[in-house]
Amino acid sequence: MRPPHSFASDNNAPVHPEILAAIAAANAGHVRAYGDDPWTRAMEERFREHFGPGARAFAVFGGTGANVLGFSAMLKPYEAVICAEQAHVSVDECGAPERFLGSKLLLVPTSDGKLRPDDVTARLKGLRDQHHVQPRVVSITQSTEVGTVYTPAEIGALASVAHGHGLFLHVDGARLANAAASLDVPLRALTTDAGVDVLSFGGTKNGAMAAEAVVFLRPELGEEFRFLRKQGMQLASKMRFVSAQLARLLEGDLWRANALGANRMARRLAERARGIPGVEIVHPTQANGVFARLPRPVVEPLQRQSFFYVWDEDGPVVRWMCSFDTTEADVDAFTDALAKLVRGNASPTRIG
Amino acid sequence: MRPPHSFASDNNAPVHPEILAAIAAANAGHVRAYGDDPWTRAMEERFREHFGPGARAFAVFGGTGANVLGFSAMLKPYEAVICAEQAHVSVDECGAPERFLGSKLLLVPTSDGKLRPDDVTARLKGLRDQHHVQPRVVSITQSTEVGTVYTPAEIGALASVAHGHGLFLHVDGARLANAAASLDVPLRALTTDAGVDVLSFGGTKNGAMAAEAVVFLRPELGEEFRFLRKQGMQLASKMRFVSAQLARLLEGDLWRANALGANRMARRLAERARGIPGVEIVHPTQANGVFARLPRPVVEPLQRQSFFYVWDEDGPVVRWMCSFDTTEADVDAFTDALAKLVRGNASPTRIG
Amino acid sequence: MRPPHSFASDNNAPVHPEILAAIAAANAGHVRAYGDDPWTRAMEERFREHFGPGARAFAVFGGTGANVLGFSAMLKPYEAVICAEQAHVSVDECGAPERFLGSKLLLVPTSDGKLRPDDVTARLKGLRDQHHVQPRVVSITQSTEVGTVYTPAEIGALASVAHGHGLFLHVDGARLANAAASLDVPLRALTTDAGVDVLSFGGTKNGAMAAEAVVFLRPELGEEFRFLRKQGMQLASKMRFVSAQLARLLEGDLWRANALGANRMARRLAERARGIPGVEIVHPTQANGVFARLPRPVVEPLQRQSFFYVWDEDGPVVRWMCSFDTTEADVDAFTDALAKLVRGNASPTRIG
Amino acid sequence: MRPPHSFASDNNAPVHPEILAAIAAANAGHVRAYGDDPWTRAMEERFREHFGPGARAFAVFGGTGANVLGFSAMLKPYEAVICAEQAHVSVDECGAPERFLGSKLLLVPTSDGKLRPDDVTARLKGLRDQHHVQPRVVSITQSTEVGTVYTPAEIGALASVAHGHGLFLHVDGARLANAAASLDVPLRALTTDAGVDVLSFGGTKNGAMAAEAVVFLRPELGEEFRFLRKQGMQLASKMRFVSAQLARLLEGDLWRANALGANRMARRLAERARGIPGVEIVHPTQANGVFARLPRPVVEPLQRQSFFYVWDEDGPVVRWMCSFDTTEADVDAFTDALAKLVRGNASPTRIG
Repeated sequence: MRPPHSFASDNNAPVHPEILAAIAAANAGHVRAYGDDPWTRAMEERFREHFGPGARAFAVFGGTGANVLGFSAMLKPYEAVICAEQAHVSVDECGAPERFLGSKLLLVPTSDGKLRPDDVTARLKGLRDQHHVQPRVVSITQSTEVGTVYTPAEIGALASVAHGHGLFLHVDGARLANAAASLDVPLRALTTDAGVDVLSFGGTKNGAMAAEAVVFLRPELGEEFRFLRKQGMQLASKMRFVSAQLARLLEGDLWRANALGANRMARRLAERARGIPGVEIVHPTQANGVFARLPRPVVEPLQRQSFFYVWDEDGPVVRWMCSFDTTEADVDAFTDALAKLVRGNASPTRIG
Repeated sequence: MRPPHSFASDNNAPVHPEILAAIAAANAGHVRAYGDDPWTRAMEERFREHFGPGARAFAVFGGTGANVLGFSAMLKPYEAVICAEQAHVSVDECGAPERFLGSKLLLVPTSDGKLRPDDVTARLKGLRDQHHVQPRVVSITQSTEVGTVYTPAEIGALASVAHGHGLFLHVDGARLANAAASLDVPLRALTTDAGVDVLSFGGTKNGAMAAEAVVFLRPELGEEFRFLRKQGMQLASKMRFVSAQLARLLEGDLWRANALGANRMARRLAERARGIPGVEIVHPTQANGVFARLPRPVVEPLQRQSFFYVWDEDGPVVRWMCSFDTTEADVDAFTDALAKLVRGNASPTRIG
Repeated sequence: MRPPHSFASDNNAPVHPEILAAIAAANAGHVRAYGDDPWTRAMEERFREHFGPGARAFAVFGGTGANVLGFSAMLKPYEAVICAEQAHVSVDECGAPERFLGSKLLLVPTSDGKLRPDDVTARLKGLRDQHHVQPRVVSITQSTEVGTVYTPAEIGALASVAHGHGLFLHVDGARLANAAASLDVPLRALTTDAGVDVLSFGGTKNGAMAAEAVVFLRPELGEEFRFLRKQGMQLASKMRFVSAQLARLLEGDLWRANALGANRMARRLAERARGIPGVEIVHPTQANGVFARLPRPVVEPLQRQSFFYVWDEDGPVVRWMCSFDTTEADVDAFTDALAKLVRGNASPTRIG
Repeated sequence: MRPPHSFASDNNAPVHPEILAAIAAANAGHVRAYGDDPWTRAMEERFREHFGPGARAFAVFGGTGANVLGFSAMLKPYEAVICAEQAHVSVDECGAPERFLGSKLLLVPTSDGKLRPDDVTARLKGLRDQHHVQPRVVSITQSTEVGTVYTPAEIGALASVAHGHGLFLHVDGARLANAAASLDVPLRALTTDAGVDVLSFGGTKNGAMAAEAVVFLRPELGEEFRFLRKQGMQLASKMRFVSAQLARLLEGDLWRANALGANRMARRLAERARGIPGVEIVHPTQANGVFARLPRPVVEPLQRQSFFYVWDEDGPVVRWMCSFDTTEADVDAFTDALAKLVRGNASPTRIG
């Protein structure tokens, strides 16, 4: 029996019903296009509530657009971004930063997906030397690509070292909600209050249909952003429908409820998987992703029951993501299937 | 009294209810992201039905993305696009083609927004000369920026001259539906059958929420397009919701019904406006846009009642766009308001 | 008999012996690369002498590099350059500005190659509107592509209108020397003193081997230029040999002597050609270029004797350039050949 | 006493007298610009002699331009280059590849500057997956940034693995001459005959003034290169003077004589330095560069006597480069100075 639920990615999930309702509610008559509409103004206000009165939010279509265009507001082409080797911007965006910015990414190996202040200072070489790109932005992913979470103190320390050297701190917050829910802190504790300058705020992986935002917490950086967004092919004409999604996520803490649910299911999944012989959880399950080393022979049979991605062929280590709509029954069915496959694999003689 | 309807742009309109219903219907459980889903496969099939079995359609977020990425599949950076001076790609996309492609647009003045074969051959200078960009694409807008329509024969003639010189023919079809509805021909009569190579197919201005497609009618041009789309920041993760919009538009000829309605209202608007003294319709109303020269003093008062854009300060010439949901009552209320303002303007003594 | 001298371009000329001697003199032992050398410091000082104490000069390899990189110090990618339709940066650099900057050029038709203040204000549309590129630089060519010259007053008027709208004034001075020599003014009268912000200073067409400079007359614009130059592939490792050329040109007014000679020969050429029946000089000969309408049948025979370019097939109008080494004998032989061909063409019966 | 000779870089050296003579010899009258001249044709012929009849050479101004433009003939922007972490193209070109190509470099750590076939295959991940850049070029530096040399067999093995996966093999041959001289093989043994597809051939570091070439050994790759070169701002107008340098280097094996001299002096330098207590030579001295670990306190005093670069602050490891004009006396004076400083440093009590 094929489980009805996918742990492949949180973007395999549908749209939260409240978000869909908000879209439908925005479908009322004519309004001006390109963001000069009440839903967009409401969305901007929601961002100010959550991120402080100086926050300037600009809706975009997708996460790659959010990251690349956020960078574009901070970088000249000879300036560079320091980020983790496995950062989404480096690995999973088909070179969009290099293509659109003309800038270089300076990669730092990490064990847990998290940059440390020393990683930043170690990359500050060749400063003011015309032969070398000039580091200008430190970019971190929150929660990280391997499901770990930066604390406010860790972010503050990175902001401090970045600002101390004239660099900006950027957060790829495709899953910022999961981090804030995990730490039980407001969104601004991980961003505005920790010294972050520019944020990609992710809605799509947390229940929206297609809605991300570039949020300038240092508002002067967003002064000319409307041109960058249009030239960057990320300006929606019927903007109200993107804005309505973001506004709804930020109303009544829907963002947190969705993230909490996904995180809780990830913990449950990790705990149940950890108890299966031969299964090892390889990163702390701090948000909505679980990374597990599996016996190699069970990977493909389990994928056939419910598709997911192999994260690292060495191991092999697989990735399982939970989403706002993952249920306990989904988790239990999946881990039961895993346990059964492991048992079958471990005891071939019983079959014969 | 402020009219409830805007003639500012067809993207000020809401989403057609059937499109919204299609989005809601796609909100069913987990599916793979990035286009590996049944709604996307259905959408691709709809495009093959309308544009021929070789058509390869790729959904993107917006019209600027569609145009720029379509170009990117045909151009090397030293190659250029020949287009009309007022082409959307040149005037209204904030330089996105130059930014993303690094290519030059070679502009041709036109009186009615339409390129002719002679315009193309006149720009074929400096061929094979290393000092000059090399023309490689002819791009036309259908229907044009001034509401005129190319016939199949006109497009065929352009395709012939383009292909004869080794160039591709591209159509910015943000309003292709309006042109096909106007001429009462199938979509392929204006594209595949007329020799078009690459098409931007517009959904948003015809009742969708945010859905456009790059359609390769010469399928080998789309071979590597998935990389260009991702690197171009136009790959939706929850793709099914974009695909569902396009698929619905192309089902049961919803595209044509929507376009026919908008076109009919534009003709009504033009006819009623033409009858008002001092108002001149400056381009043939062949699709859903009306371009009128107004007495200058009535422009602002009319805009205050229902906002629209001044297209050319000289004149002044204004632009009015009709959309799928424009009603006869909307048109009549608007033209009544115009007539009243013109009368008031013409007879100042009556007021005093 | 084939004349030994070419009027095709001033870059068909050799290197002035004094420049070659300066190169040889710089070939003395080891010095630091990339501009940290005495010849470069001397060159920088020469530019300060000629252009004022705030002038900051950076040597580059070629004129296209000078123009594009000078722009890059002033422009963000959504900002645009206003220039004449026939500007070298638009027509003859194979799209290098668009490729490297991602910016758009806004073209203005001119009759004599010269922009006027009204041309600038006419292009200041769509300001602050996110759909449109934002004009940021006005670029003029001095002397122009058709051999005309801007006076200090004309440049001052352009600077005034540019600065009044927050734009910079850029001069493509590939032949600045010819203009200054023609007007008998110092270089700074046409640049620093007239309000120019950034200059491409041309050496190659005035007797150098390969040496141009980007000169920042508003020095803060050059603050980060060394990175733009290196990233722009225009940083010479053995810089001293480029610097030595520029320094020598600016010493003892070699630049002026070379330009005066070329200008004088162009005037002689124009005067002698004007006297030939059927030959029309179509632009004032104010620098070192002569533009003549010829009887069509004489063009090719004359080209076979001494190659030159047809500037405009309609006419036809041809271009003849004089260089520092053009002699009276060269001019006379060439115009004698022209006269002979014209006579032969006009009186075919005499031949038979 | 300050030694008159610098070991900082081989581009601190002057121009070889024979190269200067060739430049002077090319200074003869008028010829067509941009490469349509006898010196350029002779240069092209020299390249065919050395690299085989299919080799197509294009002169450019500098090494960064050669590398970036060579890549541009092979890459689409979503395609990537695999190279060593310390490759010049990644570290020392201020991000020019990313800026001009929009492409990503995929970096491989190496101990000795040399890529191995396994390094290539290890980076062949995410093939055909739209989220990831697609490796398309393997680029190696010959001789490497740390003075080591690839053998023909090593290059052949890389070509084999590259071609087996549909990739091209590119050589940054800024010091190709030194490698060929070191191995006592013809230039084509390390390039054409080993399966290299595109080569940057360096002249400047081997006695030229400013002359590099992009050489297509798979000639169809160079088909459109003239446009890339012009748009890439690397087309010299007075091309004959660049071509004459390259032609002279390749005549009578001047290239080899220059490289042999530099290599021999590097070996002498390494041998003499190795004998000094506390000095360690950290890479095999196979070309013209010597990398030595020094006692930290002697670095600055030695730099004051004759400037050179610290290659790695950890160590510290310094780099000394020899050039065509380095003499035994230069080497001996320098190593004597080093020995004296080391002795002084080792015996502080003697001073007191």
